[in-house]
Amino acid sequence: MFGLMQDYPLTIDRILEHARHVHSRQRVMTLLPDGSLHTTTYGEMYPRIKRLAKALVKLGVEPGDRVATFAWNTYQHFELYYAIPGAGAVCHTLNLRLFPDQLAYIVNHADDKIVFIDGTLIPLYERFADQTPNVQHYVLMNAPKGVETKLPNVLYYEDLIAGSDDDFEWRSTDERMAAGMCYTSGTTGDPKGALYSHRSTVLHAMAANQMSVLGIGERDVILPVVPMFHVMAWGIPYAAPMAGAALAMPGPHLKPEPLANLIESQRVTIAAGVPTIWNALYQEVKAHARDISCVRSLVVGGSAMPRSLTAAYESELGVNVLHAWGMTEMSPIGTVNILRAEQESLDQEARWDIKASQGIPVFGVEVRIVDEEGRELPWDGQSMGELQVRGPWIIKQYFKRDVAPESFTADGWFRTGDVVTLDPDGLMTIKDRTKDLVKSGGEWISTVELESAIMGHPDVLEAAVIAVPDARWSERPLAAVVARPGSNLTEQAIMEYLSTRVAKFWLPDRVLFVTEIPKTSVGKFDKKTLRRRYAEGELS
Amino acid sequence: MFGLMQDYPLTIDRILEHARHVHSRQRVMTLLPDGSLHTTTYGEMYPRIKRLAKALVKLGVEPGDRVATFAWNTYQHFELYYAIPGAGAVCHTLNLRLFPDQLAYIVNHADDKIVFIDGTLIPLYERFADQTPNVQHYVLMNAPKGVETKLPNVLYYEDLIAGSDDDFEWRSTDERMAAGMCYTSGTTGDPKGALYSHRSTVLHAMAANQMSVLGIGERDVILPVVPMFHVMAWGIPYAAPMAGAALAMPGPHLKPEPLANLIESQRVTIAAGVPTIWNALYQEVKAHARDISCVRSLVVGGSAMPRSLTAAYESELGVNVLHAWGMTEMSPIGTVNILRAEQESLDQEARWDIKASQGIPVFGVEVRIVDEEGRELPWDGQSMGELQVRGPWIIKQYFKRDVAPESFTADGWFRTGDVVTLDPDGLMTIKDRTKDLVKSGGEWISTVELESAIMGHPDVLEAAVIAVPDARWSERPLAAVVARPGSNLTEQAIMEYLSTRVAKFWLPDRVLFVTEIPKTSVGKFDKKTLRRRYAEGELS
Repeated sequence: MFGLMQDYPLTIDRILEHARHVHSRQRVMTLLPDGSLHTTTYGEMYPRIKRLAKALVKLGVEPGDRVATFAWNTYQHFELYYAIPGAGAVCHTLNLRLFPDQLAYIVNHADDKIVFIDGTLIPLYERFADQTPNVQHYVLMNAPKGVETKLPNVLYYEDLIAGSDDDFEWRSTDERMAAGMCYTSGTTGDPKGALYSHRSTVLHAMAANQMSVLGIGERDVILPVVPMFHVMAWGIPYAAPMAGAALAMPGPHLKPEPLANLIESQRVTIAAGVPTIWNALYQEVKAHARDISCVRSLVVGGSAMPRSLTAAYESELGVNVLHAWGMTEMSPIGTVNILRAEQESLDQEARWDIKASQGIPVFGVEVRIVDEEGRELPWDGQSMGELQVRGPWIIKQYFKRDVAPESFTADGWFRTGDVVTLDPDGLMTIKDRTKDLVKSGGEWISTVELESAIMGHPDVLEAAVIAVPDARWSERPLAAVVARPGSNLTEQAIMEYLSTRVAKFWLPDRVLFVTEIPKTSVGKFDKKTLRRRYAEGELS
Repeated sequence: MFGLMQDYPLTIDRILEHARHVHSRQRVMTLLPDGSLHTTTYGEMYPRIKRLAKALVKLGVEPGDRVATFAWNTYQHFELYYAIPGAGAVCHTLNLRLFPDQLAYIVNHADDKIVFIDGTLIPLYERFADQTPNVQHYVLMNAPKGVETKLPNVLYYEDLIAGSDDDFEWRSTDERMAAGMCYTSGTTGDPKGALYSHRSTVLHAMAANQMSVLGIGERDVILPVVPMFHVMAWGIPYAAPMAGAALAMPGPHLKPEPLANLIESQRVTIAAGVPTIWNALYQEVKAHARDISCVRSLVVGGSAMPRSLTAAYESELGVNVLHAWGMTEMSPIGTVNILRAEQESLDQEARWDIKASQGIPVFGVEVRIVDEEGRELPWDGQSMGELQVRGPWIIKQYFKRDVAPESFTADGWFRTGDVVTLDPDGLMTIKDRTKDLVKSGGEWISTVELESAIMGHPDVLEAAVIAVPDARWSERPLAAVVARPGSNLTEQAIMEYLSTRVAKFWLPDRVLFVTEIPKTSVGKFDKKTLRRRYAEGELS
C-alpha cells in the first residue's frame, strides 16, 4: 500500500520558485572582470532565467540536450544553473583548467550543443575550438558586442535574454531527469562524466542546509571560491537560494588579495574552497592584515586540510574550519567534520587532531570499508580499507560508459578509490588514494598522513609524498618539499621532526626540495606528474 | 534523459541506520510513570527495533497493515515509530484525548490489526474495547506481567522483543510505501486519516533539520511536549536521530512542574508544543523559579502563539520563541518564523509584531491564497484569502475517502481552511479558520486577531471569540474571557483596552467571563463547543 501524499517532483525549478517568493530581495554579488561589484537579487534574476530558458528552447534545445558553460563564478553562471535544467536540458560545466585536448574530448563526448563562454575565457576556448565542430552556438557573457573571436556562430548573453520573454513553463517535470554534468579530472585515462538528476541535486541541497552539515541559513553570505565548474561549486548555488542566503561570487578574481577584500567588505560568513586557496589566503591576511573573523565556517574540501592550517585559522584568525570530504561522483558531499558536544570540552590540540579527519557521513550517504578481497572491515579507527559509498546523490554509472567493476561493486556501491579508517562513531580519516599508497614490505604507508606530518614543520610550505620502486621493500616513500622562503630547512631537520611523529618504517628514504608541488586542475597535488618526473630523472 | 544517480529509496529505516552508525551513543531519555528517568541510546535501541519488527512479522503483520499505538511519548513509542514501518506496516498513532466513540470509529476505519498500549492508558482503551473486535492483539508497554485488564489477546512488549532476534531485513523497500497515519481531530464530521509515506516522512525530517527551519543539530536536546499521537510529534522522532540530537521524552508527565524540571535538569535546547502548554509553563516558572534559558528555541504550533506570551518568554525568561504553523495533512510543517537578518536590528516591539505571524513557507511547501471564487490574491499583506498548499509532504487524499472538492482543488492543491494574508516576502499571518470568521455587515472580522488583542490585556489569561447571529449585521463577535485569578477585570476595561487596538466595528458586542475556555483534544480552543453552549443558553 502506498502513502497518500502528493506526487510532487523534486526539481531544481522548485528551489528558484521558493527563493523568488520568499527571498526575492536577497543579494547575489559578483566581482566583475574590472574589479567592480555587481549586485542583483534572486527576485531580479527570476524573470531573466525564465527568458533564458525560453531562449534556449527557441534555439532548438531539446530535453536531455547538453548545454555547456565555460565560465567563472558569476551571477550569469548562476542564472544558467537554473535556466538550462529549467529548459529540460543538462547544465554541463567545463573545467577551464584542463588541457585543451581533454576539453575537446569532453565537449565531444558530452555532445554539447551550445557553449556559454565568459569574455575573458574566449582565448582559452579558441585553443581547441576547431576540435569541437558540433557545437552549434557560442554565447558570450561579460563580453562587448563585436568582440574579436575565431569562434563561429556567436551570440550574446544579454541579447538572448532581451529577445525572449518570461512566459515560459518549466520543462523539468520528472525528478529523475538529468540536470547537470561534471567530468572528473581523473589522473588516469579519459575524463568521465557524472550525470546528476534533478532529484539528486535537490536532495543534496537539502542535505547541505542541514544544521549538522553546512548549516546554511538566511543570515549567511556565502563565498564559493570553489569554481562552479568543479562539482557544481559543491552544490552551493542550489543550497543558498533554498536557504535564502546571499552569495558573493568572486568572478575571475581568485587571488588571495581580492578574496580577502571581498570577505572583509561583504562580511562573508561561509567560504568554501580547497586547502591550497586557504593556505594562500592565510599568507595574505598575515602579510596584510584584514578582519576575516566574520567567517563563521571555512569549508574545506577537495583534499585534506593540514592540521597546522586549521590550527592557524582558528587560533590566529578566529575563523572556524569545517573540514569536509566529497567527490565529483557524489555531488559532492560525503562527510563533514563538526565537533560533537562532548568534543567541545577537549583541549585545543585534541580538537585539532579530530578536525584533521574528514568527519562523519552526512545523512543520505552510507559508507563501508573493505579489504583487497572485498571483505568488510570493522569501524575500529585502525583498519584501513577502500571506502565504498551509496546514496541518492551518488552515481550508479558514468555517462556513456559501462558499469565497470573497478568503479562499482556487484551490489551497487560506488568504489571511491580512497583508503580510509572509520572509528566506532563513524569518524572517517582518509589515509590515501588506493593508487597512491606506499606498499613497503607488506605494510601500507599513508602518503597523506606522512605529508600532513611533514607540513606540520613550521618551515614547510607544502609537501607531497610518492611511492618509488625499491628492490628490497618493493616500494619506499619519497618526499617532495617546498621550504618557506628564507628558511634554512634541511633534510635532516625534517627527519628529526618526523622521528617523534611517525613510525620508523614510514620515514621517507629521501627528501627532495622543490620550488612548487605540481597541481591538478582543481588544485590537488598532482602525484602522477611527480611520479613521472621522478621516473624521468627530473626530480633529484 | 534520466540522470545516472543511484536508485536509493528514501525510507525511514535509513534514518535509523544512520543514527546507529554515527550517533549510536546519543541519548533518548524518558520520564517513566513513576517519575524516574530512563535513559537509552540510539545504538541500544537498534537491535530492539529489529527484534520488534521481526516479531510483528511473526504475528502475521503484512505489508500495508495498520498497527496502532495508544501511548505517551516514550522510548518504546520511538521504537515503534521505526519497527512498524520497518516491518512494512503503517504506524497509526491513536489520539488518546478523543472521545471513546471517535476512537472506536478510527480503530475500525483504519482496520488496526494490533494495538500497542501504555499501561497507564489501559482503562482509557477499555472504555471502547468492545467496539473494536477486529483488533487481533493488544501489546502492553510499561505494564507489569499479569496486570488486570478486560482487553483480550494480551501480549507484553518486552516479551515480544525477548522472544525475537535481530536477524531481520527491513521490509520498507519502496519510498512510496505507506509508513504512518494520523487522523485529524476535525471539529466537524468523522475524523479523517492522513496516510504518510516513507518518502514524505524522510523529506519532512530533512526539511525540519534545515538551519532555516527547526535547525536541529547533534548538540541539541529536544523535548517534544507535542504528543507522538499528534502528527507524529511534528516529525521530531524522525528528525532528531537524523541529526544525531538527544531526545527528552516526558512520558505521561505533561504538567508544567515536571516539564520545567525536565528542561532544567536535562538542559533541553529545543522544546516543542502548543501555546496552552507554554502558557502553563510560563506561569509555573514565574511562580517557582527555574532556569530554562538553556532552551534556545521554543517551538510553538497547533494554534497561534499570543504576542504577549512570546514577549514574556523572550524578555523575562531568555527563551527564544520559534512560531511555526502546520497541519496534520502537512506532516505537519508549513511555515516557520525566524527573523531575517535585517529584522534583527528592529526594536523589540517590532520584532514581536513580526513573531506574532506564522512565518514564511519552508522549502518544499508552496502556498497561494484565493478568494471565495477561487481567484488568486496578491501577496500584499492585506488581502485575506483561503490558504492552499502543495508539496511532497502534503496529502493528496484522505484514507478511504474520495478526493472531495472541499479539501482539494481541481489542480491538486490542498485547501487548508485557514484564512491568511501573505506579505510581499511571504510572511504569512493566519487571520482565522474559514468556518470561524465573523462576517459582519459584509466585512470579515478575524477572531484570531481579536483574541490575540484581548489576551494582550495583563489581566486576561485566555480569550476566545465566536460569531453569534445578529439581525442587523448578520454576525457579530462575542468574547469569552478567563480573567487572571484575583484581578477585578470588567467588560468595560476590556473594551477600553481594545478601543485603541482594533477597528471600532471589531469591538465584541459582549464579553462573557468564564472559568475556562473549552479545548479540543490537542489543546486548541474548541469553538464548536463554545458556539453550542451559547446557542443553548449555557453561556451568558
